[in-house]
Amino acid sequence: MPYINIKITDEQVSKEEKRLLIEGTTELIVKVLNKNPKTTHVVIEEIPLGNWGVDGKQYLGTKKH
Amino acid sequence: MPYINIKITDEQVSKEEKRLLIEGTTELIVKVLNKNPKTTHVVIEEIPLGNWGVDGKQYLGTKKH
Amino acid sequence: MPYINIKITDEQVSKEEKRLLIEGTTELIVKVLNKNPKTTHVVIEEIPLGNWGVDGKQYLGTKKH
Amino acid sequence: MPYINIKITDEQVSKEEKRLLIEGTTELIVKVLNKNPKTTHVVIEEIPLGNWGVDGKQYLGTKKH
Amino acid sequence: MPYINIKITDEQVSKEEKRLLIEGTTELIVKVLNKNPKTTHVVIEEIPLGNWGVDGKQYLGTKKH
Amino acid sequence: MPYINIKITDEQVSKEEKRLLIEGTTELIVKVLNKNPKTTHVVIEEIPLGNWGVDGKQYLGTKKH
Repeated sequence: MPYINIKITDEQVSKEEKRLLIEGTTELIVKVLNKNPKTTHVVIEEIPLGNWGVDGKQYLGTKKH
Repeated sequence: MPYINIKITDEQVSKEEKRLLIEGTTELIVKVLNKNPKTTHVVIEEIPLGNWGVDGKQYLGTKKH
Repeated sequence: MPYINIKITDEQVSKEEKRLLIEGTTELIVKVLNKNPKTTHVVIEEIPLGNWGVDGKQYLGTKKH
Repeated sequence: MPYINIKITDEQVSKEEKRLLIEGTTELIVKVLNKNPKTTHVVIEEIPLGNWGVDGKQYLGTKKH
Repeated sequence: MPYINIKITDEQVSKEEKRLLIEGTTELIVKVLNKNPKTTHVVIEEIPLGNWGVDGKQYLGTKKH
Repeated sequence: MPYINIKITDEQVSKEEKRLLIEGTTELIVKVLNKNPKTTHVVIEEIPLGNWGVDGKQYLGTKKH
């Protein structure tokens, strides 16, 4: 049943990177909490850079945040 | 006041299907909880298939999930 | 796969009312979008009245909002 | 640490308006709760009009809602 | 219609501080986006300290994060 | 900047299990996306069993879901 929502900025994350995020998160949930992977959902949401702010400022698009 | 967020995969859900989801969810909330429909909000979010995973795997796009 | 999140104020919603919300939302999703109920998740979150505001004011606890 | 998620309808909100929302929300959090702005995140999500319903009906796109 | 969700750690935020957050956020939305405050919802969620992590670590409860 | 929200049922998840979830999720995000852990937030939300439904039914509390 776990539901995991990952919000990141929209910076050309590849299909393979998304696959690794989904696989890795699910494995972690299964390992730590002994949950059933078949009902573990992972949803990745990509947010345009100008829509994400930290320290009161919009992101300028550097990858390392 | 209720706020309902429906997340589904982005698979060409029609405007009419969205209308039915919004109407039906609101009617349910009003019927079960006696809430005021005028302050009941429904927000549908469509998630690209590759961004949604179950059982550690990305969806492959079959409709019946 | 659908994931539905229902946020309401915390006003002694009964277990039976929650059951009706979960059942009704799932039936609606299955009917309108032809989704598989076995992977349809509904999560109800109850928010303390003082934590919910509309029109810039905290709710005062009347049921009909 | 605060995390603020602002959902609005997608109606050509300008970059400058988003900047003001991020700046203003962060200042408010800092002023009221004395939080560190450097770890205060604001995420704006724009929802297509047909995906947002109130009173059981989809929005028709008037700005004043 | 805007919906604003504020997540903070659960550290005895007072009713008055919540009132100021709801009032201030609503005023900001009205000023910047010209939205109707009557349909602007603000929901504050308080997260137990041990449930919030940054830099891979659980918060230890200092106020200034 | 990533923000990860983990929703699970409220079944006496220990502080150590939460620590492992926060640590593991952050490491995964850093490894796959090369993000800065210092701005990676993980928020765990525990949902009462009767508030979570799958297949149109409330959870009955078995651990393996």
